[in-house]
Amino acid sequence: MAQKPSIPKGTRDFGPAEMSGRNYIFDTIKSVFKTYGYMPIETPAMENLGTLLGKYGDEGDKLLFRILNSGDAFSGVDFGSYATGDGKYNSKALSLKVCEKGLRYDLTVPFARFVVQHQNELSFPFKRYQIQPVWRADRPQKGRYREFYQCDADVIGSRSQMNELELVQIVDRVFTLFGINVLIKVNNRKVLAGLAEISGFPDKVVDITVAIDKIDKIGLEAVKAEMRERGLTESAVSVIEPVLTLKGGYAEKISVMRGLMEGRSASGIVSETGLKGLDELDELFGLIEAAGISQEAEIDLSLARGLNYYTGAIFEVKAKDFEIGSICGGGRYDNLTGIFGLPDMSGVGISFGADRIYDVLKGLDKFPKEVGTATRILFANMGTEEVKYLLPVVRALRESGISCEIFAESSKLKKQFDYADRKAIPFISITGGDEVSKGQVNLKNLSTGEQESFGKDDIDGILKFVS
Amino acid sequence: MAQKPSIPKGTRDFGPAEMSGRNYIFDTIKSVFKTYGYMPIETPAMENLGTLLGKYGDEGDKLLFRILNSGDAFSGVDFGSYATGDGKYNSKALSLKVCEKGLRYDLTVPFARFVVQHQNELSFPFKRYQIQPVWRADRPQKGRYREFYQCDADVIGSRSQMNELELVQIVDRVFTLFGINVLIKVNNRKVLAGLAEISGFPDKVVDITVAIDKIDKIGLEAVKAEMRERGLTESAVSVIEPVLTLKGGYAEKISVMRGLMEGRSASGIVSETGLKGLDELDELFGLIEAAGISQEAEIDLSLARGLNYYTGAIFEVKAKDFEIGSICGGGRYDNLTGIFGLPDMSGVGISFGADRIYDVLKGLDKFPKEVGTATRILFANMGTEEVKYLLPVVRALRESGISCEIFAESSKLKKQFDYADRKAIPFISITGGDEVSKGQVNLKNLSTGEQESFGKDDIDGILKFVS
Repeated sequence: MAQKPSIPKGTRDFGPAEMSGRNYIFDTIKSVFKTYGYMPIETPAMENLGTLLGKYGDEGDKLLFRILNSGDAFSGVDFGSYATGDGKYNSKALSLKVCEKGLRYDLTVPFARFVVQHQNELSFPFKRYQIQPVWRADRPQKGRYREFYQCDADVIGSRSQMNELELVQIVDRVFTLFGINVLIKVNNRKVLAGLAEISGFPDKVVDITVAIDKIDKIGLEAVKAEMRERGLTESAVSVIEPVLTLKGGYAEKISVMRGLMEGRSASGIVSETGLKGLDELDELFGLIEAAGISQEAEIDLSLARGLNYYTGAIFEVKAKDFEIGSICGGGRYDNLTGIFGLPDMSGVGISFGADRIYDVLKGLDKFPKEVGTATRILFANMGTEEVKYLLPVVRALRESGISCEIFAESSKLKKQFDYADRKAIPFISITGGDEVSKGQVNLKNLSTGEQESFGKDDIDGILKFVS
Repeated sequence: MAQKPSIPKGTRDFGPAEMSGRNYIFDTIKSVFKTYGYMPIETPAMENLGTLLGKYGDEGDKLLFRILNSGDAFSGVDFGSYATGDGKYNSKALSLKVCEKGLRYDLTVPFARFVVQHQNELSFPFKRYQIQPVWRADRPQKGRYREFYQCDADVIGSRSQMNELELVQIVDRVFTLFGINVLIKVNNRKVLAGLAEISGFPDKVVDITVAIDKIDKIGLEAVKAEMRERGLTESAVSVIEPVLTLKGGYAEKISVMRGLMEGRSASGIVSETGLKGLDELDELFGLIEAAGISQEAEIDLSLARGLNYYTGAIFEVKAKDFEIGSICGGGRYDNLTGIFGLPDMSGVGISFGADRIYDVLKGLDKFPKEVGTATRILFANMGTEEVKYLLPVVRALRESGISCEIFAESSKLKKQFDYADRKAIPFISITGGDEVSKGQVNLKNLSTGEQESFGKDDIDGILKFVS
């Protein structure tokens, strides 16, 4: 009995059409990374669990896919000692006993591990990009997968705002090439820390961050309510509130914020950290202005981004003309490699969301026409002699970079035309005995109906006709 | 205490230099696949174990990496019922209880699963290529890894020798582009089956195949000895022996073999299967002759290839000027999709060995010079004002496709030169206050020492100097 084929839930097959779109996305992003001197690396899908555990919080640890040790994984394990009664076991401890490896959960931790492990072979600042799948045992749902690609660029070993500038420029260029209008939102974690300080609750920076991160989803009033629930006083909330709705250009926003951080808020508290963050933002936007960008970049003081390891600039990119979450994001971190024994390495990175970018390009019909059509000419198979006659012609066309197919079987012409139709092949050649005897090759443009004959050595003529 | 970073044994990190070489290999192969109308697909790293088990023999089943079920994998498992005494367990049965998924072992079985699962969305003959990692819990040793890329092209749904021809042409073109001289060895499983028939041991085709597959490694005498050990009589061996050392062009070999298969061997047995295989080889080599290829292709009657699912043509490619095993191989199979419920789909495919091709290109120094050098110009950082002055120039160069870096920090020039040196950047610009006041950009070719100044808007002049 044959097995009904299926794949694990939360995973996907990508057929030719989707792959063409995805390759277009990755190739475009790579080509931009390269013009900024970013170099590719790849790390193994499997990491030692010690590398992964504890890096993503307790929830993250549960979402790691673990690999059963190979060979006899179970013999010698004292299962009884893991029993917790009622047929239940301490799965956490037991899985560590029988699994040493896990699938990577993101590209950031493997990158940190890579930098530390290979530090003596690398030139710093080290600029790398990495495009590989990651795996998470999340509950599958619409738009959330258990296997998906991340597409990251990071530079590590430099504190200069030049690096932030480059990432903004890369984002700008990538989405301009895609023809997607975006808003590049920028903030700085030090400004958020400063906000916590001047509100009088310097220890509540995480609470404040978590609350204001939701402003787009739940609105200002709900964010204020959440800050109160998280223990902020009314006066603290009133210090923070106006910041979240601040309008104007970057210079104006920075100027107002500088006033507050210098002690001119209701609390009168001065924040050195906040001022440092504003200096960084000021420097970055000065550089952006000097470089000139095609898209819009703005300071968004309500931008927080969830990840706790960010310590400086944070970025988030939204498509202006398509309703979807953030399609790119990132930020600066100061101690990513510390856990692996290399302290004081500041870095900054961004990550492009390939699945969402695919949806935006598709939704806005922005994929270039060439994407998805592979074969340019189908040579109908009229019999062995005709095929042998055509082979050198087809070879020359292929070596000129034109994708050609000779139909493999000398089937009825209808079947061959159907094949061209289903593969959206724009040109067909029906070269039969007549053409062979005249030394010709026949070509037809399937969309215009235009037809022409060429001498079999007139490769240039054929190239011109099909280009 | 910091963790000492490491990766699982048998896996690898690829740094920028290796990645450049690997991308060159994959990009070259992809570009050739495309000119033949092959389209990319990707399948998930994890497959249901039911898809993988039993497809690679008992040994293969043991080499599958299994993924522990997520959530609480152990509770409710009656471990006692799997105990076999002495603290040992039936690992095979127990692992099926706690693991539903495994990492793919090759790309062929997932491809078969894909074709069956998506048969209604595909146009047949379906030509796909697939370049993804696979995982095997093999004992790691030199040149054998637990994670490695496979790079496969297959066409399914056509019995025509045109498909075999295309694969030979693809191999020919790929290695010609690489500048590697190769010998493309071709045989046909039906001829091997015929050989078993005329030797009088039609049931021993696997034994004969396994033995003669080793001829390159152990030599003719040892192969004969092995055939005897595997139960062949002296007269059977004497029917097979001359075939293994047959010399001459394809037409000559086919002619001699046709005689034997028609009953003119010592046994006098006629093999219809063998004759069918010879017809296929004859047709294929006739097509190769008509198409013209740049490399050498020959019939090698001792070529067997281990995999049992091949039923027609088989291929193997060897580098002529570098000692290493086969760098590419493949063949025709008649019933790959049958196990998943789609019978009678004949297909043929090849697989390129990326790791070995990398070693050959490196060993023969055939990587193009550009491979591995990313950045073309390093703009030294002489301070914020100079950087701001340069930013529009650098932007224009990048948009023209030139990879540029501005050093992120205004460090000592020696440090900046060292960075250019370690990254093998061929041009440097030291544009200071003097050049800024004159509206110029300074450029130096680091290998020739040649130096020139350009107006800051003279992007064409700069492009010419660095190209």
